[in-house]
Amino acid sequence: MVKAIEWTDGKVRILDQTRLPREIVYIETEDYLDVAEAIRSLRIRGAPAIGIAASMGFALAALAIRADSVQQLSERLEEPARTLVSTRPTAVNIRWAIERMNSLLRKNLDEPVQKVKELLVEEAKAILEEDIETNRAIGVHGAELIRDGDTILTHCNAGALATGGYGTATAPMLVAREQGKEIRVIADETRPVLQGARLTAWELMEAGIPVTLITDNSAGALMRKGEIDLCIVGTDRTVRNGDVANKIGTYTVSVLAREHGIPFYVAAPLSSIDLTIPSGDMIPIEERPPEEVTHISGVSIAPEGVNVLNMAFDVTPARNVTAIITEKGIFHPRDIRKLAEEGLNLDQIRIKMW
Amino acid sequence: MVKAIEWTDGKVRILDQTRLPREIVYIETEDYLDVAEAIRSLRIRGAPAIGIAASMGFALAALAIRADSVQQLSERLEEPARTLVSTRPTAVNIRWAIERMNSLLRKNLDEPVQKVKELLVEEAKAILEEDIETNRAIGVHGAELIRDGDTILTHCNAGALATGGYGTATAPMLVAREQGKEIRVIADETRPVLQGARLTAWELMEAGIPVTLITDNSAGALMRKGEIDLCIVGTDRTVRNGDVANKIGTYTVSVLAREHGIPFYVAAPLSSIDLTIPSGDMIPIEERPPEEVTHISGVSIAPEGVNVLNMAFDVTPARNVTAIITEKGIFHPRDIRKLAEEGLNLDQIRIKMW
Repeated sequence: MVKAIEWTDGKVRILDQTRLPREIVYIETEDYLDVAEAIRSLRIRGAPAIGIAASMGFALAALAIRADSVQQLSERLEEPARTLVSTRPTAVNIRWAIERMNSLLRKNLDEPVQKVKELLVEEAKAILEEDIETNRAIGVHGAELIRDGDTILTHCNAGALATGGYGTATAPMLVAREQGKEIRVIADETRPVLQGARLTAWELMEAGIPVTLITDNSAGALMRKGEIDLCIVGTDRTVRNGDVANKIGTYTVSVLAREHGIPFYVAAPLSSIDLTIPSGDMIPIEERPPEEVTHISGVSIAPEGVNVLNMAFDVTPARNVTAIITEKGIFHPRDIRKLAEEGLNLDQIRIKMW
Repeated sequence: MVKAIEWTDGKVRILDQTRLPREIVYIETEDYLDVAEAIRSLRIRGAPAIGIAASMGFALAALAIRADSVQQLSERLEEPARTLVSTRPTAVNIRWAIERMNSLLRKNLDEPVQKVKELLVEEAKAILEEDIETNRAIGVHGAELIRDGDTILTHCNAGALATGGYGTATAPMLVAREQGKEIRVIADETRPVLQGARLTAWELMEAGIPVTLITDNSAGALMRKGEIDLCIVGTDRTVRNGDVANKIGTYTVSVLAREHGIPFYVAAPLSSIDLTIPSGDMIPIEERPPEEVTHISGVSIAPEGVNVLNMAFDVTPARNVTAIITEKGIFHPRDIRKLAEEGLNLDQIRIKMW
C-alpha cells in the first residue's frame, strides 16, 4: 500500500503529492517548517494525513528544542504549534492532533525532557498507526453498504494518500474487493487541484480496482443514466448537526445524488468530527490562490487578470447525507451529536445493514 | 465585437479558439476541408457558429467544383456536405445550414452554374448576418429577465465566439448592460475544454462586463449562499418536448438551480430547435477523445492509461428549464412543440414579463 507519510530514523518522510502521478518523489526532513510547508502547498493533503503530518511536525520541533524542563519545552512548542495549525483552516484534524500532543505534554510535566521528547515521537507514530486501524474499521463497516456489481462515485481523494493508509472513502471499496465483490469506481477529477485525476485514479489503479476518470461536470449525466449505485466521499470536518465540510463540489454531488435517489455516504473517522461546532455554516472555508484555477501545471488557461473565486471546500447539509461511516459503525447524520453523550450505548444509534 | 468567423474575398476567416486567450490567430482558407478540420478540432465551436462555418465550407466547396450544370454541382457537393455534417453530431445547426444550402440548389437547378455558386456564397453570408440579428433579438427578449444588480451564472461559451456575433446566452447580458442595468457574470470554467475560462471570461472582459471565473465545482456552493440570481445557458439542440442538449455539466447546473429556486433559462435560436426529435433521450451525444480530460495544453494531469469517459454534452429535461429565450420571444419549454403548428399566433404562448 502507498504511504503518504512515515516516521523513519528521526525524520519525517512525505510523498510529494503535487508531483503525482508523473513522478514519485519523497521529502525527508528533520525540520518542522518543511512539514508545515508541505501541508500548506498540498504536498501532503487529506484531513487524516495532515493531522498525522502535524503531529510528526510537532515531534520534530520538540526534538530540535533545548529545554530544561517539560514546562519550558511546552512553552517553546507554542510557536511551532501555531505555525502548524495555521497551515490549513478547514480540516479539524490538525487541531485535534496538536491538542493530543499538548495533552501528552501536560500529563508528563515532571518527567525528564528527553523521555518526553521520545514519548512525543511515539505519540505521533501511534496517531499514524491508529489512523490505519481506524480506516480499516471504516472499511469493514462501509463494505456492508456495497453490493456485488456496484459502481461507486467518489469525489476528490479520500484514499490511502489522504491518510496513514487504506483511506477513508476508499477503505470500504478495498474491503468490499477483499470480500470478493466486483466493484467499479467512477472518480471525479476534482478541479481545481485535480486530486481525483492525479491521486484517486492513480492509487485505485495501483490497487487493481477498475476506475474510470470523469470531469466533475459528468457526474450528473451518469447519475441520470442510472450508472452510479452509490457515492462515498471523505470529509475535512463533520459537525454536531451532521453537516459535512469536504472538497468543493461535494455539495453538488450530494444534490445530484438526492435528485436521483442514490445513497450518499460520508466516510468520517471520529477525529474529523467536531462536536464543538453546531452547524456547517460556522465551519471556516478556506479560499485558496486564484492560480489554482487559472493555471494547470504552470500553464495559463484563463485570461490574464481575470477575477477568480476559489473556495477550497463546501458544506453538504445533513439532509443530503444518507449515512456517516465511522470506525465505530454507520450512523445517521442526526445522531452524530449523540456521540458526545456520556454512557451512550452506540448500538442504540448504529445503523444496521441486515 | 469579436468575430468568430467571416467571409472575406472568397476566403473563410476563422478565429482559432483553441489558441485563446493567449494568442489571437486566424485561419484563412479557400479549402472546405480546412473548415471541416476547424470544426472537428474546436477551432470554431458553438452551435450557431459551426452552422455558419458549415455553410461557408459548403460555399467554398462549391466554388472549387467544376460542373456543367447545377444538378452536377449539387451531386458533387454531396461528399463535402457529408464531411461537414460528420464533424460534430450533437448540434443540429450544421445539418440545418447544409439543408438550407441544398434547398437553394434545388430551387435553382436551371440557373447558370456560376450564378448559383454566387448565390451559395450570398446564402452563407446571409446565414451569418441573420444569426447576428437573431442573437440581438434574443438579447432584447432575454434582457427582460434580468434585473438591475443581478448576478448571472453561465456555463460553457454561448457568447459572440459561439455565434456570428452577440452570442445567444450572452446577448441578454449585453442588452441588459446597454439598458443601464448593473450586472455581474459568474462563468463556470467548463471542463474539459475550458470554454468558460478561455472564451466566456475573455470575451466578457473584452466587452467590459464584470465577470468572475469559478470551477464547475463551485456553482452549487455559490447558489447555496444565495449569490446567483439566474442562470442563462446556450443549447446545441432543443427538441419537441422542451428537453435541451448542451455542454456537459449543464444538466448539473439545472438540477442545482431547481434545488435553490433559481430561474434556469436557455437561449435558443430557432435554428437550434429540432422538432423532428420527440425527446432529449434521442439526441446523439458525442463522446470525445480521453486526451481532453487527461491532458491540458499538452500536459498530462492523470495516470498514463487511465480509463476515461468523456461525454461532450448532456441533456437537461424540460422540467428543469424555466423558459427558453428565442428570437421570437420567451417560451415555456412545453410550448416548444407548438412552434411547428401552422397559423399559430405566437402571442398565445409567448411568456410576458410584465
